[in-house]
Amino acid sequence: MNDYAGSDEQIDDLQLKGLRIIQKRNSFRFGTDAVLLSYFANIKEMDKVLDIGTGTGIIPLLLYAKKNPCSITGLEILENMSDMAQRSVKMNNLTDRINIVCGDIKNSVLHFGKATFDAIVTNPPYKKSGSGIKNVEDELSTARHETKCTLEDIIKAASLLLKTNGRFSMVHRPERLADIMQLMRQYKLEPKELRFVYPGIHKKPVLLLVNAVKGGGSFLKVLEPLVIYKENGKYTDEMLKIYNLDA
Amino acid sequence: MNDYAGSDEQIDDLQLKGLRIIQKRNSFRFGTDAVLLSYFANIKEMDKVLDIGTGTGIIPLLLYAKKNPCSITGLEILENMSDMAQRSVKMNNLTDRINIVCGDIKNSVLHFGKATFDAIVTNPPYKKSGSGIKNVEDELSTARHETKCTLEDIIKAASLLLKTNGRFSMVHRPERLADIMQLMRQYKLEPKELRFVYPGIHKKPVLLLVNAVKGGGSFLKVLEPLVIYKENGKYTDEMLKIYNLDA
Repeated sequence: MNDYAGSDEQIDDLQLKGLRIIQKRNSFRFGTDAVLLSYFANIKEMDKVLDIGTGTGIIPLLLYAKKNPCSITGLEILENMSDMAQRSVKMNNLTDRINIVCGDIKNSVLHFGKATFDAIVTNPPYKKSGSGIKNVEDELSTARHETKCTLEDIIKAASLLLKTNGRFSMVHRPERLADIMQLMRQYKLEPKELRFVYPGIHKKPVLLLVNAVKGGGSFLKVLEPLVIYKENGKYTDEMLKIYNLDA
Repeated sequence: MNDYAGSDEQIDDLQLKGLRIIQKRNSFRFGTDAVLLSYFANIKEMDKVLDIGTGTGIIPLLLYAKKNPCSITGLEILENMSDMAQRSVKMNNLTDRINIVCGDIKNSVLHFGKATFDAIVTNPPYKKSGSGIKNVEDELSTARHETKCTLEDIIKAASLLLKTNGRFSMVHRPERLADIMQLMRQYKLEPKELRFVYPGIHKKPVLLLVNAVKGGGSFLKVLEPLVIYKENGKYTDEMLKIYNLDA
């Protein structure tokens, strides 16, 4: 290994502008959801961005490479995960652009101050606390279940941390759509774009992507289906483009 | 013409169990949305069903033919429309199964009584009052704009009129999704199934279909896309089936 990764970790090449990421060998590893969120999120070059629950720091790295915002802060509650994310940032020489903070979203307004960010993104735990079988390992459990924070904690904090007209982007499971819509309305994050991710055109969606605007007017654009696989089992053209695999 | 239809009306064959419907020549005529709702709605044979804003009575006729529930009441606020719907019911010899009532949804709980229906369906006006260009004709305007009642009036009344665990089904525009989810939650109609209707697989959806349950637990199934046209411009197999055109 090298100076950055521990013995239970490995360094993976993101195949994107020479970026690499440190991940645990046998624990949470980033997936398609992080890649899709980084593609879908409405991020501009002058933006000060926050990623809530950054985990390995994958989303700040992908956003840096794809959208090049002014600065990205990754907030992570687990110390060992935020330490690993911080080492990935250093390894990529991005400490001037990406800042990893270890902390709890529930104290984030005190820490960062109200109306601080232009854009907030999050790939939160999908399952309600108590639902499904929890993984023994704390990192996996925290990444997948709302053990440390609920969807409401995240949406409430995001609303306070965003400037007026600031943008909020999230990837989540379709089964939580009613919760998402209800909580966004409650905390004045108006949903503006919604896209469902279907494994195939005859399948139920497995993910949703949503862009909201703090204090925005009510008119939601539901977008065309984002289909992962063609009927022959190969990636669709759009997925090839998202993964930078189109020649 | 015959005894049932006036001079500005015509009788159309529904191509379904010999049913016919009276429609105005130059005003609101039923569309794909009514057909899709009748297909999607979760209706059982023992059900006492209400159709809110029945218009020409198309949905009671289609539900009778496709789902054969015990009884269907069609509520319509415009006198001339409810009269026309009533004539269609008589013409089809269905007065023992379908009952057309002229009245206002806002007085419907007084009229029908609380917890009266097993299932309620509605193809309501899609546009907020004041949005878009209103049609001069009152029937068209009432069918398309929330001039006589709002989405909230409908959802609130449906919740009161349904028995516990009663089913509510609606077709609407995707742009109103956040309103629909928020109001359903507010009035305890839990959304359980949601399906988007896409003109083609690379197009934005034009309609949504939602099934909710009064007092149901929160878990929403977003279903596979309902695609209208194949890439060659012909109906998909599912649309052929819905229109009874599959040989």
